[in-house]
Amino acid sequence: MPGNTFGTIFKVTTWGESHGKALGAIIDGCPSGIKLDEKDIQTELDKRKPSSSKMSTKRKESDKVEILSGVFEGKTTGMPISMIVWNKNAKSKDYSDLKNVFRPGHADFSYYLKYGIRDYRGGGRSSGRETVSRVMAGAIAKKILAKHKCKIIISKVETGDLKPNDSCGGLVEIIVKNPPQGLGEPAFDKLDADLAKAIMSIGAIKGFEIGAGFRVAGMLGSENNDEFEMKNKHIRTKTNNSGGILGGISTGEDIIIRFAIKPPASISKLQKTVTIKGKETTIKIKGRHDTCIVPRVIPVAESMIAITLVDHLLRQS
Amino acid sequence: MPGNTFGTIFKVTTWGESHGKALGAIIDGCPSGIKLDEKDIQTELDKRKPSSSKMSTKRKESDKVEILSGVFEGKTTGMPISMIVWNKNAKSKDYSDLKNVFRPGHADFSYYLKYGIRDYRGGGRSSGRETVSRVMAGAIAKKILAKHKCKIIISKVETGDLKPNDSCGGLVEIIVKNPPQGLGEPAFDKLDADLAKAIMSIGAIKGFEIGAGFRVAGMLGSENNDEFEMKNKHIRTKTNNSGGILGGISTGEDIIIRFAIKPPASISKLQKTVTIKGKETTIKIKGRHDTCIVPRVIPVAESMIAITLVDHLLRQS
Amino acid sequence: MPGNTFGTIFKVTTWGESHGKALGAIIDGCPSGIKLDEKDIQTELDKRKPSSSKMSTKRKESDKVEILSGVFEGKTTGMPISMIVWNKNAKSKDYSDLKNVFRPGHADFSYYLKYGIRDYRGGGRSSGRETVSRVMAGAIAKKILAKHKCKIIISKVETGDLKPNDSCGGLVEIIVKNPPQGLGEPAFDKLDADLAKAIMSIGAIKGFEIGAGFRVAGMLGSENNDEFEMKNKHIRTKTNNSGGILGGISTGEDIIIRFAIKPPASISKLQKTVTIKGKETTIKIKGRHDTCIVPRVIPVAESMIAITLVDHLLRQS
Amino acid sequence: MPGNTFGTIFKVTTWGESHGKALGAIIDGCPSGIKLDEKDIQTELDKRKPSSSKMSTKRKESDKVEILSGVFEGKTTGMPISMIVWNKNAKSKDYSDLKNVFRPGHADFSYYLKYGIRDYRGGGRSSGRETVSRVMAGAIAKKILAKHKCKIIISKVETGDLKPNDSCGGLVEIIVKNPPQGLGEPAFDKLDADLAKAIMSIGAIKGFEIGAGFRVAGMLGSENNDEFEMKNKHIRTKTNNSGGILGGISTGEDIIIRFAIKPPASISKLQKTVTIKGKETTIKIKGRHDTCIVPRVIPVAESMIAITLVDHLLRQS
Repeated sequence: MPGNTFGTIFKVTTWGESHGKALGAIIDGCPSGIKLDEKDIQTELDKRKPSSSKMSTKRKESDKVEILSGVFEGKTTGMPISMIVWNKNAKSKDYSDLKNVFRPGHADFSYYLKYGIRDYRGGGRSSGRETVSRVMAGAIAKKILAKHKCKIIISKVETGDLKPNDSCGGLVEIIVKNPPQGLGEPAFDKLDADLAKAIMSIGAIKGFEIGAGFRVAGMLGSENNDEFEMKNKHIRTKTNNSGGILGGISTGEDIIIRFAIKPPASISKLQKTVTIKGKETTIKIKGRHDTCIVPRVIPVAESMIAITLVDHLLRQS
Repeated sequence: MPGNTFGTIFKVTTWGESHGKALGAIIDGCPSGIKLDEKDIQTELDKRKPSSSKMSTKRKESDKVEILSGVFEGKTTGMPISMIVWNKNAKSKDYSDLKNVFRPGHADFSYYLKYGIRDYRGGGRSSGRETVSRVMAGAIAKKILAKHKCKIIISKVETGDLKPNDSCGGLVEIIVKNPPQGLGEPAFDKLDADLAKAIMSIGAIKGFEIGAGFRVAGMLGSENNDEFEMKNKHIRTKTNNSGGILGGISTGEDIIIRFAIKPPASISKLQKTVTIKGKETTIKIKGRHDTCIVPRVIPVAESMIAITLVDHLLRQS
Repeated sequence: MPGNTFGTIFKVTTWGESHGKALGAIIDGCPSGIKLDEKDIQTELDKRKPSSSKMSTKRKESDKVEILSGVFEGKTTGMPISMIVWNKNAKSKDYSDLKNVFRPGHADFSYYLKYGIRDYRGGGRSSGRETVSRVMAGAIAKKILAKHKCKIIISKVETGDLKPNDSCGGLVEIIVKNPPQGLGEPAFDKLDADLAKAIMSIGAIKGFEIGAGFRVAGMLGSENNDEFEMKNKHIRTKTNNSGGILGGISTGEDIIIRFAIKPPASISKLQKTVTIKGKETTIKIKGRHDTCIVPRVIPVAESMIAITLVDHLLRQS
Repeated sequence: MPGNTFGTIFKVTTWGESHGKALGAIIDGCPSGIKLDEKDIQTELDKRKPSSSKMSTKRKESDKVEILSGVFEGKTTGMPISMIVWNKNAKSKDYSDLKNVFRPGHADFSYYLKYGIRDYRGGGRSSGRETVSRVMAGAIAKKILAKHKCKIIISKVETGDLKPNDSCGGLVEIIVKNPPQGLGEPAFDKLDADLAKAIMSIGAIKGFEIGAGFRVAGMLGSENNDEFEMKNKHIRTKTNNSGGILGGISTGEDIIIRFAIKPPASISKLQKTVTIKGKETTIKIKGRHDTCIVPRVIPVAESMIAITLVDHLLRQS
């Protein structure tokens, strides 16, 4: 039944609920000797914060990280790195009237099915708050990638139109520049397979592509194959339909990832639903919710990509 | 560096190369007492065979499965089930002139980068032959799903236009009817995340969607949310944009999966490439190759879906 | 490089150093619906505290546990349970003069070899303080065993003679009464193999036995075999040389475990050693140390046994 | 429920039953570029064969290994190495009269409890035949250790007195000479903990010691601590009570392991037992059995030690 750990060597375990005392991440397997302080992590966490724009929740999340272990005199020791963020602005009262009603598009129903218990306070563990832990871990992964001159950049962001009382989704393209070569394993732990899992494990994401993605369905082999050429004495491809991965292993070309984010499920529009006891009813969801989470998902996706790459980098060495 | 095992409880390990002696799969964690004989597996393997159509390779693969362990008096014993298929029609000579040239779109280059060694015979382990092992394991997973009245069906297949000397890709939609409820784990081992990894680990697949997939990017929350209703005393959703999974856990609604398959990389058209020594050259790939692998990928994808569902089913119990 | 997780389904991850901010444990995979509050854990933690006897360290460890996640309205939710104990009485100054000297019998040298860095404050992660995390996790495992009417008892404790300025070791026998039947897996995850790993992973333990243990070396088959008989309509064994485990699987008979604990390495007697720079020197270890840790190891060993049994119990179901 | 895989990076999966068609091992994670042919493995397998002495079974086991994958042109490729040995001399008829009776000291009873099914032919998977797979994998591990100039030697073997119709046990001490430094992980994957699991996972072993082992219970700290000194410009210990491992991590000193082997359970003396239906009865076990397995366990134990060391070596790099 466990499922809160990601990675094989750079092993990230996360814990915490939206309205619990705190959220945290443990990294077991981080190499020793890496310079690390709380500022490195805080910078990334701040990117995930609700902005002052209309799209974001009014919940104020100060989200100050504290490192509890694994760092001594400013460097990682090779021991597990435990990080924590205390929940400060949780208003569980907001949720008490949702206690017995399943919210459409939320995990309420499936969690109740599975666990026979329901933490109705803001979605409990299924809340987007859980991604705080991912960003903390991702911050460390990014530091390791930076040492290899590898960088993750956002190359495209598209969002839908905002409507009063409703929410909208979006599409994001992320590119990994200068990825280490040779990452990924046959047959199941292909780099693209692990990236797909990493991205699809983020709550609101419903589609994933690598390189030419769904366009390959309509392409000919002669269009899709990336021909090899020599460039500055290195073997390179002329095009990059493969998205930097051949046979599940990185070639060194840019890794190109696209994914689709669904509109947030919490909307204040009237929706039909049922109660825990199986009575049909309607619901209008009040509370402080994002109307579009695209900007806030981006640092989470970057984090998951960074964690996946570092895990494979350490498997490799 | 290992990566040839999939699953946590229903653990599938595969081995073998395209032109090696044999290919095999071990399932460790299959429950005892399940009726099983070689015919159950052969039926599924036969679906993966090259057909007599023009699209398929001329390599004749008889692919007769032999069960070597884990079954006694017609029933599984709970011990590891080892299955083997001998390679009979491998013609390695066909590949000797490819020995020093990287084939565009193939894993030759990335494997050489990673391992410093190259099994040039038909792609070695990166070949589609590897999926023989997946289908053997999937056959057992399907038997277990059938006991739960759960079925995997193909609901859509689209392929590109065939051209002389070239190859084409395609799109497939698969639906899991009557899936067990409550499968999937927070936060990383969500059912959709594990399905994404399962599907994306198949060599030629470049895109994955669940439910409404990439369409969610343009939807409003009020359009995308699946409202709940009562039907025959059960809680059901009116629509199924979520594709049967909420918060990473199956609701019991149909699980809807779509994926895109790239055109096979081996084409007899002239392509630019480089040699192992870094000299630019051209290549025309001879040999017996599929021009479209869509029909042959389908049983593999079904197998990976079945293995993923059974693994989560056993994690659940 | 990670190694701070134990278990497959009931997965315990621990973190924290002797003189860091805090120590913690995460349990991922604990079933939902189990009554749990901090008192359950505190009771076990208190058993691990230094006693007022002469054998114990003078370091006062209040060790108050706080549950940070995974429990809602007094019951486990199936989500990761995060527990923390803050380090309050750490006096790192005590250790500053040990900074450049390897203490005989300690992990100083091997950690320095491996990580190229050294947390000299009280042994860092290699300290006995780390076992606080194990006892927290063990407390929950014991609650689950209690529901199965299974109990862990101490049946024998032997300690050496205390000498001024020196330390002594000891021997412990622990019996699991009424263990669930059928726990353990072939071939590598045998219950006795996993118990051996569990016990031997406790810092000071150098030997492990199950059932008749080392005595089997001198026994005949006819003496060692436990004959079967019927008792109250159940199949039982007349003797229990096997220690309740046959072929790696529990039979339901008492599980009998013995292990040897070495004398604590920190002694105030003069010892020969070398510095980090490779100069020979002598050392007298001051500070607040236990002269015999046998009583304090017992709750740790019980915890590891309980965790192992619960993990196999959940693998079983 | 799976339990037939050992190791994290150098991952060994075994399969097969005593009287099934074949036995096998898969190694996933073996580095590429290692010279390997079947002779390397056959040499080790031959050590495990029944000797011509009175102590050994009369079953003739030719045990010819065949490598099916993962080796190309005499070198490992980094792909899974699949090895097989066909069972040739199995006489299942010998066992048909044992079908309904539990043999004292055997796994018959516990397997039946757990799986509800019983492969009565020679113990099925719980048979010592299973160790054929371990020796095949161990042969490859030993090759890797040899490249690091590390060697495993037998330093002590004691066996009991043979009696007509009975069986005897024994004690073995194995020393790892020149082990790589820095192997082992905190807190649970300590090298000694993993060695304990490795050794205790061999069917007949009931006790395990490292270094001074059980003797530490009676020692003082000043006797047990290994003082450091300089020798040829290296930091060494004067004594080796720790058995080459401090804090779970190898120091480079000899690793000293001792273990006790129980007398084989199959004896032709009359024993009391019960039937599957719970009726008391007696049994005399006929067939071809070893009266002492100490010499045959040694290559198995060496293999498990080698596999454990190589796994930690690869985790380390």
